[in-house]
Amino acid sequence: MPPKHQNEDSLIREIASRCRPVLDPANWHSVALGIGDDAALFRARSGCENILTCDWFLEGTHFLRNKHPPDSVGWKCLARALSDVAAMGGTPRCFLLSLALPEKLIDRWLHLFLGGLRRASHKFQCSLAGGDTTRQSKILINMTIVGDVPTGHAVTRSGARAGDILYVSGRLGEAELGLQIVRRSAGPAHKGNPSRRKHLYPEPRLALGQWLSKRRLATAMMDVSDGLSTDLPRLCAASSVGARIEEARIPQVGTSDLVIKHGRNPMQLALHGGDDYELLFTVPPRKAKLLPKTFQGVGLTAIGKITRERKLLLVDENGHATHILSGGWDPFRKKTGRHAKFSAHRRGAKALAS
Amino acid sequence: MPPKHQNEDSLIREIASRCRPVLDPANWHSVALGIGDDAALFRARSGCENILTCDWFLEGTHFLRNKHPPDSVGWKCLARALSDVAAMGGTPRCFLLSLALPEKLIDRWLHLFLGGLRRASHKFQCSLAGGDTTRQSKILINMTIVGDVPTGHAVTRSGARAGDILYVSGRLGEAELGLQIVRRSAGPAHKGNPSRRKHLYPEPRLALGQWLSKRRLATAMMDVSDGLSTDLPRLCAASSVGARIEEARIPQVGTSDLVIKHGRNPMQLALHGGDDYELLFTVPPRKAKLLPKTFQGVGLTAIGKITRERKLLLVDENGHATHILSGGWDPFRKKTGRHAKFSAHRRGAKALAS
Repeated sequence: MPPKHQNEDSLIREIASRCRPVLDPANWHSVALGIGDDAALFRARSGCENILTCDWFLEGTHFLRNKHPPDSVGWKCLARALSDVAAMGGTPRCFLLSLALPEKLIDRWLHLFLGGLRRASHKFQCSLAGGDTTRQSKILINMTIVGDVPTGHAVTRSGARAGDILYVSGRLGEAELGLQIVRRSAGPAHKGNPSRRKHLYPEPRLALGQWLSKRRLATAMMDVSDGLSTDLPRLCAASSVGARIEEARIPQVGTSDLVIKHGRNPMQLALHGGDDYELLFTVPPRKAKLLPKTFQGVGLTAIGKITRERKLLLVDENGHATHILSGGWDPFRKKTGRHAKFSAHRRGAKALAS
Repeated sequence: MPPKHQNEDSLIREIASRCRPVLDPANWHSVALGIGDDAALFRARSGCENILTCDWFLEGTHFLRNKHPPDSVGWKCLARALSDVAAMGGTPRCFLLSLALPEKLIDRWLHLFLGGLRRASHKFQCSLAGGDTTRQSKILINMTIVGDVPTGHAVTRSGARAGDILYVSGRLGEAELGLQIVRRSAGPAHKGNPSRRKHLYPEPRLALGQWLSKRRLATAMMDVSDGLSTDLPRLCAASSVGARIEEARIPQVGTSDLVIKHGRNPMQLALHGGDDYELLFTVPPRKAKLLPKTFQGVGLTAIGKITRERKLLLVDENGHATHILSGGWDPFRKKTGRHAKFSAHRRGAKALAS
């Protein structure tokens, strides 16, 4: 039975004890002072730059209390924030958890939430260093991650050059399909099928990001969190380049019963679905042969090329090119056009609340 | 005129341009990569440990949209989070801003908010390194601060020893009085009187914290953010000690017209009021003579002693001792007793919403 909490200090003690670090020796000394003081103390590794990132994860926007199991919320709030560390080629070091909860959830829901969070914390070797708690009518989560990367090895969005080959890991649109399945299920969704699992328990591509960074294979990299059609323009804008994508090459979900049943077109899912947390990266042609077809079981697919001309083109099987229109999630974009329905996940999935 | 925002990327560009760092040379290179990539890159200083802290600042809980000027919200969300860095004896380095806003506020309100945030950022030499934005019906803010302190110099809560003298900076209860004034004002409150100003534009005691840490004068330290009666027990629990406070010595607001008008007892304000962001620290008797009466214009007052016996006692002018009951703000504490009305600020000022 989870304990009853009388005040904030006892709540913080439960969070600290349930998320006790189990780290490999390389990470043991990173948190010199953890939960319970005014602030945490973090020891940076010499020869490294520190990666800092934070992420909202809000009830009604990024998850639904009656659809997403608390264990998944705990896992995913950490895993998705770690995807930004993967996208820099970095290694997670520690995290801060800001959590606001309704009072009635601070026993059972919190207990299950912390279970999922702890599993992710152990799996990705990232320990809880501190945080802040308060009471609210809705569950609000903000995650801060500290990671690091050897100085000069961080892979930014701005290094893509004309001629570079554009790669993506895994399959795109899978988490979006998983979201549809979760939304339509009667009760809390279970792990079951791969799309559902990818939506509920995403795995940041940390090992791939580190490998690409260490070998200096990627000239630019980012994670695909808001959908390829929204994220690719960001990479191209940062690098002052364009891209030409071959539609037939985009790795997508199969036209299985599930897709048909849920009325989704796999190509639309792949272009505009969010929450995949795959890596999008560019590799100079001369280094492309060093890339395996899969890395630790995850496919690496060349989907197109970087161009000097600053256009984003999608080329179909007949060689016909169309402009790629951003249709992934952007919480502040005026909703126009057919892609708004795919509005998803990362930065404010209004689709969830609709 | 503030610009109109079409999407999240343009919003992020405004935040970045309005909060452009103006830093002294010592801090120039701390943020190696700022806003616009998957994550920020921070260069730690050698010989230092890094301080990490995060803080909620939520509409309806920590501030009211119709009472607190946006400029104050911008200033205060950074200033109060920096108080935790001051409490460790540290120096601010950079911050991450997580901001969720209603769409209708992303022009004028945001513009004024960023003005206050920028002023605090320049004043306290802490530059914006990154963040996350999304849309919500209420304003949600989460601040992450990165600071640093020479290795081994951080002042924790756990070093107080029996016999140490307990000090507090400034006056206690002043910000609580300011809150009452702000709540009762007809429109948005202006800076005006000192209590109001302390509530709206608090100043973290960074220079004092650094001085105490550098000279190794303080054995334990924390900031008073939830009220002396709530925070002192935390320091004593961390140090496994008790304390004996002399009521007459607690620096408090004067029994001015304002206090009488607002029906507040200065001693109750001083014991249970929150949001003061003063420093509470302990000094061994042999070092007490090294402490000035004021530091950069802020009073330093000995209010009592640390005791071996783990009781928290308040001694009146007649030598009569009573137990100190926590009455400051704790969002998860069951409300009992007379002090609930002082419930304030830092971690969830339910008083604001009532």
